[in-house]
Amino acid sequence: MKTTIGFVGVGRMGANMARRLRDRGYAITAVYDALHPTALAVAAELGAHPCRELGEVTARADVIFTVVSDDAAQRAVFAASGDSLLTNASGRIFVNCATISPAIHTEIETAAAKAGAGSLEACMASSVPQARNGTLYLMCGGRLPLFNQLKPLLGELSNGGQTLRYIGPAGTAGQVKALVNMVMNINTAGLAEGLGLGAALGLHLPTLMDVFGQTGAASRVVTTDAEDMINQEHTCYFSAAHAAKDSGIALQLGRERGLHLPIAAATKAQYDRLVGLGLGNLDKSGIAELTFPGRSGSRK
Amino acid sequence: MKTTIGFVGVGRMGANMARRLRDRGYAITAVYDALHPTALAVAAELGAHPCRELGEVTARADVIFTVVSDDAAQRAVFAASGDSLLTNASGRIFVNCATISPAIHTEIETAAAKAGAGSLEACMASSVPQARNGTLYLMCGGRLPLFNQLKPLLGELSNGGQTLRYIGPAGTAGQVKALVNMVMNINTAGLAEGLGLGAALGLHLPTLMDVFGQTGAASRVVTTDAEDMINQEHTCYFSAAHAAKDSGIALQLGRERGLHLPIAAATKAQYDRLVGLGLGNLDKSGIAELTFPGRSGSRK
Repeated sequence: MKTTIGFVGVGRMGANMARRLRDRGYAITAVYDALHPTALAVAAELGAHPCRELGEVTARADVIFTVVSDDAAQRAVFAASGDSLLTNASGRIFVNCATISPAIHTEIETAAAKAGAGSLEACMASSVPQARNGTLYLMCGGRLPLFNQLKPLLGELSNGGQTLRYIGPAGTAGQVKALVNMVMNINTAGLAEGLGLGAALGLHLPTLMDVFGQTGAASRVVTTDAEDMINQEHTCYFSAAHAAKDSGIALQLGRERGLHLPIAAATKAQYDRLVGLGLGNLDKSGIAELTFPGRSGSRK
Repeated sequence: MKTTIGFVGVGRMGANMARRLRDRGYAITAVYDALHPTALAVAAELGAHPCRELGEVTARADVIFTVVSDDAAQRAVFAASGDSLLTNASGRIFVNCATISPAIHTEIETAAAKAGAGSLEACMASSVPQARNGTLYLMCGGRLPLFNQLKPLLGELSNGGQTLRYIGPAGTAGQVKALVNMVMNINTAGLAEGLGLGAALGLHLPTLMDVFGQTGAASRVVTTDAEDMINQEHTCYFSAAHAAKDSGIALQLGRERGLHLPIAAATKAQYDRLVGLGLGNLDKSGIAELTFPGRSGSRK
């Protein structure tokens, strides 16, 4: 019989991962959400049991995905006492997909092992459509044998495993994600300066954007953000506030190791300035508002 | 009869552009170089006349490519008096490929028009192998009808025209090149910080490099420079000193227009620091020496 699957946290990401696994033939047997009406709706759709307690999820599923929002929520679902996923968890496997502080993954791995369960960090570098289509970029941290055991299942979420990566011990996948976002934010802020200066020079911006995309200046963010920067179209996919937070996590890791990271620091300062102007809810492309001449955040 | 072609400046770039056009059936009829032995050798190879004076080139060719080293050299070959390409230049067309101050292209266009000649800025964002194979990325500035007239010829140097771009009036192609290099330098310095922090965290760097290349952190410089940064392989393709200079040109354009460009400024400061350490002759990937822990330029 195929592995049964539980989900803790069925917001947009979790629910779509669950739908994808259901489509691929897995039985989603248990669903829990901090907002119980959400759990009820998703459970009804997927034929799962809507759980009111975390211990029920553990009782009803072999592999349990947790897709929660932050450090506090992640710690709460693995609480040492009271209602917890760790209740009678022997033989269960937890796959923890939240972006949280790396050290928490190690804590959870230890606590799960004490309960006779396995724990894997599975850090996502993609968004809702990729969750639904099974094309997530999935970076994993934890014990290698556990990763290998879960490969067929995780492959259903990650292009048949083509975008599934084993990074290292628990917590390292989150470190890599922080570095990815740090570098992405730098590329984004740099692109905004290039396009903003092009605008100040009176250059034809669609041409400039094309040239950037075809030369040494090429980057993923030229494809995803340049047109939005030019058109001031900053509908949020990944918020400026989130960008500031992730660059901050990376800078903190750097400080702890005595590293001098001036480009990352200048980028963080720009995103902080955007947040300070009350524009933190814009997409990360909103950084262009600080550099294009005449826009709200531009200054001399 | 096919257009006859002259070359002024047959160093590695100019000579290989000439070889490419010869291969495509053009007669290279005149060759000049500040170092006459160089002109003699290239002229002998291509069946051209080795000219001792600039006026001879104008007398012997319809379209003349100038591929010189800097502002002073570019001004000298179009001198208002004495030996000059502008002598009896009526009906000739000049294609100026040097990376020089944008304003000089406007000066030359005006002077050429007075002499009854045409002038086009053709800025190259590629290197020697692309010159030889006719796969240059060529950005042009000047009058649009002249650009259209030269398209078939310039297409022989630029993937049949697939990488040939009309940017705008004379001087604008050089501005775009400065912006391309400014953005490329930012991406490079940011990548070095990402990999350097990864090294400090003890992450597996080839994996980190792969992840960067497959996520929002992806950029052309991940492909061209990441491995070199990891391996400290900084054989020069585009020097750190050149990177500092080009970022400086872009920042100067920004200052003249009252723009605040903190990411570009932080990048320029890093390249300046590398030059100050006597490492300006390294490839631009050498910026990694400032951020990887334990390397010569790293600091707290």
